[in-house]
Amino acid sequence: MRVAVDAMGGDYAPHEIIKGAVEAAREFGATVVFVGDEAAINLELSQYRQGQPFLYEVVPTTQVITFHDHPSEVLRTRKDSSLYRAIQLVAEKKCEAIVSAGSTGAQMAISLFVLGRIRGVLRPGLITPVPSVTGEPFYFIDVGAVADCVPENILQFARMGQVYCRLVTGKETPTVGLLNIGEEAEKGSRQVIEAHKLLAARTPGFIGNVEPKEAFRHVADVVVSDGFTGNIFIKTMESTAETLFDLMKTALGSSIKGKVGGALAHSNLRLVKQKLDYSQYGGVPLLGVKGISVVCHGRSDATAIYHAIRVARNVSDEGLVTKLEALWK
Amino acid sequence: MRVAVDAMGGDYAPHEIIKGAVEAAREFGATVVFVGDEAAINLELSQYRQGQPFLYEVVPTTQVITFHDHPSEVLRTRKDSSLYRAIQLVAEKKCEAIVSAGSTGAQMAISLFVLGRIRGVLRPGLITPVPSVTGEPFYFIDVGAVADCVPENILQFARMGQVYCRLVTGKETPTVGLLNIGEEAEKGSRQVIEAHKLLAARTPGFIGNVEPKEAFRHVADVVVSDGFTGNIFIKTMESTAETLFDLMKTALGSSIKGKVGGALAHSNLRLVKQKLDYSQYGGVPLLGVKGISVVCHGRSDATAIYHAIRVARNVSDEGLVTKLEALWK
Repeated sequence: MRVAVDAMGGDYAPHEIIKGAVEAAREFGATVVFVGDEAAINLELSQYRQGQPFLYEVVPTTQVITFHDHPSEVLRTRKDSSLYRAIQLVAEKKCEAIVSAGSTGAQMAISLFVLGRIRGVLRPGLITPVPSVTGEPFYFIDVGAVADCVPENILQFARMGQVYCRLVTGKETPTVGLLNIGEEAEKGSRQVIEAHKLLAARTPGFIGNVEPKEAFRHVADVVVSDGFTGNIFIKTMESTAETLFDLMKTALGSSIKGKVGGALAHSNLRLVKQKLDYSQYGGVPLLGVKGISVVCHGRSDATAIYHAIRVARNVSDEGLVTKLEALWK
Repeated sequence: MRVAVDAMGGDYAPHEIIKGAVEAAREFGATVVFVGDEAAINLELSQYRQGQPFLYEVVPTTQVITFHDHPSEVLRTRKDSSLYRAIQLVAEKKCEAIVSAGSTGAQMAISLFVLGRIRGVLRPGLITPVPSVTGEPFYFIDVGAVADCVPENILQFARMGQVYCRLVTGKETPTVGLLNIGEEAEKGSRQVIEAHKLLAARTPGFIGNVEPKEAFRHVADVVVSDGFTGNIFIKTMESTAETLFDLMKTALGSSIKGKVGGALAHSNLRLVKQKLDYSQYGGVPLLGVKGISVVCHGRSDATAIYHAIRVARNVSDEGLVTKLEALWK
């Protein structure tokens, strides 16, 4: 398969992006199409002349999208950016998937504009695996694609999330929970109450409302919410974990006993940190567009990019887009 | 001062409730008015005949409110419940404050109905201190009183939150941040964008949007959101922390080195857990009603109740209700 990689997107571009993509190309035998500044890409690639050979191409572009560019501006004025061209390669069937750690807003806007929506989809959504106490992640959608939702969006997220979860886990009918502030059907905002009714009527596997605590216990395979709440959920989880690790580091450093204990327990505690580490998941596909567009964290390192390409390959091999299209046939 | 205590509300009532209240009565010289099942209260009180004397009264009631009772039902059918009678004591000026660990929904509904709203307040909100990396908590409002907000509610929460924060911390103009999924003014849902405009125009100390990460870094003294998002924020934070501690416990137990390290670091790690422990904050006042109604966690133990009574005393001494009334004069 051929994967377009936005070589210029992300905090650690192009170095970490190219490093991770080269690893993936070697491991999976995929052809990586690097899109971006030709000189910068070639300079990075010169480091990989030794070792196992791999397949790649370079598509040179001249423009750059920054996190400050407004997505709607980007559509008009950044057609020769690495991100825009990389997505075009998928639309033109020259690549099966695109991977970027650049601006998520721009990637969503360009993907929607250039690839188009799957027939029947109101708004694409972003799904992400979230660690749970059981060790097996659950899948959360929408983590921020659609800040203003109607209940029908939430229903669609649930159904697309189920398709994705089935594809990734092999479960026939993944269970779905609605993120809410109480378990009872009548709890929450008007929007959530309406979404609950839709889900109850039209989603096999719907188990009702789940509060954050139950979500982390993996009571549902897929947890669904509007993109505003979902983004707050994910970011609160990430920053609580970061805050806790910071506090722990300070606390362990405050006494000799703590320092010794911390040193001894270091590898165990690192295991916990790894469980929460997003880079192992790599990236997440935007569900609902006619093509595979894998969105990575802006802070993605080589490992994250490697895994994002793995995700892109898997969902491409499994026919994600065709399976989503079947939902509305 | 006289504090009405709902002796029957909470997972550990009446034992822990009465234990904490007795400690507070002894420490602060307050009169505690225990409301609930007379026999049960007297049985508990018999344990405290020894030791330092304290002032108390018992107001017997016959009904109980459970977490399953719908708040609107409660208003009609549970007038002789411990919670309803305790709140009435404040309305009748027989007590300065009421403290309960019973159903939060019922406490909010009864407080609103029996005490009434402060003139000008659209909807009362719940405020809570949240630990930050600086060691000093920030104050979050609304953590779940109003699931369906209009932007004006959020503005009012911000202003009431500032008054509360000033009263608790002594800061002249506490800074206010709006919880959002991005820093820029145009980020977020339509509701949040509108709220941003209102806050920017009418709130001295408003610093703009804050994401969860910034909130935990204490970039604002008061963080404001609608009650649905706020409740998800608080519950996600609590359950992420719980999940992490669970994962750590498992990880430390998985090897000898981990067990030894964990044992050595135990007191340091416990310090971190204590920082996140809600019981040290006790309870939170419902802001916007004409009286002091302190809401405690359902799982409150004696320490939480002790601190809740401390909070009730402080805000009563500082004239919280009068200060809130001044906002709309």
